[in-house]
Amino acid sequence: MPNPTAAMLVIGDEILSGRTRDANTFHLAGVLTEHGIDLKEVRVVSDDAAAIVAALRALASTVDYLFTSGGIGPTHDDITADCVADAFGQSIDVRADARKLLADYYEKSGKELNAARLRMARIPEKAILIDNPVSIAPGFIVENCYVMAGVPSVFQAMVQSVVPLLTGGAPMLSKSLRVERGEGDIAGPLSELVAAYGDVSFGSYPFQDNGIYGANIVIRSQDSARLEQAFTALSEKFPE
Amino acid sequence: MPNPTAAMLVIGDEILSGRTRDANTFHLAGVLTEHGIDLKEVRVVSDDAAAIVAALRALASTVDYLFTSGGIGPTHDDITADCVADAFGQSIDVRADARKLLADYYEKSGKELNAARLRMARIPEKAILIDNPVSIAPGFIVENCYVMAGVPSVFQAMVQSVVPLLTGGAPMLSKSLRVERGEGDIAGPLSELVAAYGDVSFGSYPFQDNGIYGANIVIRSQDSARLEQAFTALSEKFPE
Repeated sequence: MPNPTAAMLVIGDEILSGRTRDANTFHLAGVLTEHGIDLKEVRVVSDDAAAIVAALRALASTVDYLFTSGGIGPTHDDITADCVADAFGQSIDVRADARKLLADYYEKSGKELNAARLRMARIPEKAILIDNPVSIAPGFIVENCYVMAGVPSVFQAMVQSVVPLLTGGAPMLSKSLRVERGEGDIAGPLSELVAAYGDVSFGSYPFQDNGIYGANIVIRSQDSARLEQAFTALSEKFPE
Repeated sequence: MPNPTAAMLVIGDEILSGRTRDANTFHLAGVLTEHGIDLKEVRVVSDDAAAIVAALRALASTVDYLFTSGGIGPTHDDITADCVADAFGQSIDVRADARKLLADYYEKSGKELNAARLRMARIPEKAILIDNPVSIAPGFIVENCYVMAGVPSVFQAMVQSVVPLLTGGAPMLSKSLRVERGEGDIAGPLSELVAAYGDVSFGSYPFQDNGIYGANIVIRSQDSARLEQAFTALSEKFPE
């Protein structure tokens, strides 16, 4: 059976302007691979409602799980929650359950639950809240869309909160061989293996490392026996 | 006049599986911002021809410049050149000019220009070659699509080769203020500034730094005088 599929939507001008380097995609990709969920596509769009809504609709309809990162804070440029409500045809307002989470938290910390903070309790009507153990303001789930914060520590905590809710597949197993030969010398022998092991995926990732040219050959399969067979064949093809 | 727009397409299973962290988007985003070109969207897709062709078509038709990264090496999983030819309706084969570049280079270095390496001379019929001072195998330009290598050092060299060919806009100027208050306290006063300076873009990027919560407020404009006015107002709103 094929694995469940996923897409990621990163929302934020700061990534597209080169101000911030996105860290959440790399984190999520690793977690999904571990759980046998195939990440098929990532998109990064700016804090623009039309662009966000279009990307949400396009991605949610083609994968089993859509994860978003960014745009759920208290400032004027945080518009993700409203865009999700729009994309999935739900109404949105301050919700009592989210408001209570924030009210309790800010009361304890002596901060005011002002209008800006209250925006973080704006949640689409039928959404399920995602626990945020770092800074309380929740993420949420609407249909197959998991809406999470952009700050990496909060994003990672939310990912941890939602992983138990996901139906994983057979984890993709992988083995890697470092070959210190130019990719042009590797390609020919490698394609013979690709032909012989049609059920194993072969990737060649070139590197340059202190003047040494080579490639990491990564082979992937859900079947550990086949993976071992292919790896043995690979190692014989490229002895050290 | 609005700035030219751009999109980036990152091609490669290794990013989606979490094996490799993409570095090229961050580099390109910074270069484009410097040159007054607005990066509107980034997509990452796997080494799958249908996905690559669909993304090429969708992005190329909506922006002035499309940049791609990855999939132009000599191995079986390098299928970008063929996908670009397909997406833009051009034929593709080993081209004499690209073949000569490779032949000269490998002759000097005593390596064989074998069938695998020759794949890197497969270039769409009407493409313009992009210089690769690092490892010779060229990138290429088809219409508004700039096809470059995935290895970061080669990608960066190719970006440097193409920048003089791009028509930039007025560079976006920015100033940044670090405010050590919770975003929930920043949001209210900030939205007054957003309303007062409609022609300046305000972004709020929260951080947590050794237990200190705060946000970097980044303001952006092409007009340096307006930027200074807005920054003065911002600094008065959030004195240290």
